[in-house]
Amino acid sequence: MISIIILGSGNVAKHLFDTFLGQNEINILQVIGRNKDHLSYFKSKVEVSNDFNTIQDADLYLIAVSDDAIPEVAKTLRGKKGIVAHCSGSVPLKALDPINRRAVFYPLQSFSAGKKIDFKSVPICIEAENKNDLNLLEQLGNSISNNVQEVSSEQRKSLHLAAVFVNNFTNHLFHIGHEICEDNDLPFHILLPLIKETVKKLDYITPLNAQTGPARRNDRSTIENHLNQLKTKNNKDIYTLLSKSISEKYRNEL
Amino acid sequence: MISIIILGSGNVAKHLFDTFLGQNEINILQVIGRNKDHLSYFKSKVEVSNDFNTIQDADLYLIAVSDDAIPEVAKTLRGKKGIVAHCSGSVPLKALDPINRRAVFYPLQSFSAGKKIDFKSVPICIEAENKNDLNLLEQLGNSISNNVQEVSSEQRKSLHLAAVFVNNFTNHLFHIGHEICEDNDLPFHILLPLIKETVKKLDYITPLNAQTGPARRNDRSTIENHLNQLKTKNNKDIYTLLSKSISEKYRNEL
Repeated sequence: MISIIILGSGNVAKHLFDTFLGQNEINILQVIGRNKDHLSYFKSKVEVSNDFNTIQDADLYLIAVSDDAIPEVAKTLRGKKGIVAHCSGSVPLKALDPINRRAVFYPLQSFSAGKKIDFKSVPICIEAENKNDLNLLEQLGNSISNNVQEVSSEQRKSLHLAAVFVNNFTNHLFHIGHEICEDNDLPFHILLPLIKETVKKLDYITPLNAQTGPARRNDRSTIENHLNQLKTKNNKDIYTLLSKSISEKYRNEL
Repeated sequence: MISIIILGSGNVAKHLFDTFLGQNEINILQVIGRNKDHLSYFKSKVEVSNDFNTIQDADLYLIAVSDDAIPEVAKTLRGKKGIVAHCSGSVPLKALDPINRRAVFYPLQSFSAGKKIDFKSVPICIEAENKNDLNLLEQLGNSISNNVQEVSSEQRKSLHLAAVFVNNFTNHLFHIGHEICEDNDLPFHILLPLIKETVKKLDYITPLNAQTGPARRNDRSTIENHLNQLKTKNNKDIYTLLSKSISEKYRNEL
C-alpha cells in the first residue's frame, strides 16, 4: 500500500486523483490546495485542506500545480520524509528542494476538464535520485498505466517540447481547418476521417515517409492558389513557412 | 449496374479500383494509363491499355491522374457519351471539356501506396452539371461510402486547402516531434497516446476550445526555454509563428 498526498487541485490533480481512487494498492490521505472552490471536487471522498501546515506523513507527496508554483509548494514540504515528486513536463528534478527525496511523476497527456482519460495507455515518465524511490514510483505508475518509463530531466524537457509540436500546434492547425470549413459552409467533421487516417499511419510508417501534398511535390501552382485563397496574413505566413519547411526536407527527391 | 473506365494508374486509381472491384453493382471495363509498369497492378483483373484510342463506351469515365494531366486526359474522351469525372480536390469542374457531361468524384482522403483504406468512412465529394448525373455519382459513392456529399467546385477548393493544414502540415509537425525524440534517445511512440487524444477530442469539442499549452497561456518563460532548445532556424521560426498565432487568438482571455 502506497500512501499519497496530492498538492494541487487543478486538472492534473483531479485526473490523477480519480485514477488513484480506483486502485487497491493506493491510499490517498489528503488533497491540499489553496483554492477552496477547487477542493470541493475532492472533499466527499478524501480529507481536504487549504492549510499547508496540516500536511500529514505519507510515502509520496505529488505536487500537481502550475510550473511557476512548484518551488513554493515544495517549500511547505521541508522536513517531510516521504518522496516529493512534481508532475511537470518542463521543470527539472533539481528545481525541488534538495533537502527532500526529489522525484518526478509526469503523465504525458493533455488533460481537459470534464473529459475522463484512460490512463492505461498514458506514458508515465518517472525520475528519482535513488533506486528505491524509483521503484516506488514505478510501482505507482504500473498500477494505473501499461507504459511507465524512466526519463531524465533533460529528456523530459525535450519530450515536453515535442508535445507542444504534436499536440498544441497540431490542434491549432485543426482550428485553422475548422475556420476554413466554417467560412465555406462546410461541416468540420468532413475532415475527421482524413485527420484520423493521418494519425493511424504513424503506427506503421514514419511521418517522414507518410508526407504527401503540394509542398512535398514542390507544386508551385497549387501552393500559389492556396495562398490566394487564404484571407489572413497569419494563415498565409503559416502556410508559406510550413510549405517551405516541407519542400526543403524533400528537395533531394525531386 | 454502373460501367466504369478508370483513367490513371497511380495511388488514387489503385485504391478506387480495389474498392469498386468488390461491389456487385459496379462493372470496371478498363483501366487506361500511360505507364505500362503501373498497369501491371490491374491486368490480372481487368482489361488494361496504354492506348487512349482503345477506350470503350461506359457510363462513367473516372480521371484519376495528377492535377496537371487532367485536361490532356480529358481531351482523349471527346465524343464519349458517358459522364467524365475527375477525382481531384483542387481542380474545378469547368477544367474538364464542356463537350462532355462534366462531373467530379473526389474522395477526401490521403492515399498511401500499400495501405488499404476503409472507404466506408471516406467522405466522397460529388459535383455534376445535372440532376441525373449527380444521382449516378451518388449511387456510385453510396456503394462504397456512408458519407457522400454534394460539394461545389468553390467549396471543394477550400476543402482541399483545409486538408493541407490538417493533414500535410500536421504530419510535418509529427515529423518535427519525431526528430526531437530521436535527438534525445526517446522512442517516437511515446508521443502517440497524446497525439491520439488530441484527435479524439475533436469528436466532442472544437479545436478552439481544446487548445492548451504555453502559447495559449502566453507563458513567455516556457516559450523562451523551448526556443533555446530548438536547433534549427526553421524549427525556431515554426515555433515562433505558431505560438504567436495561438497567443493572438486567446489574447482576450488573459
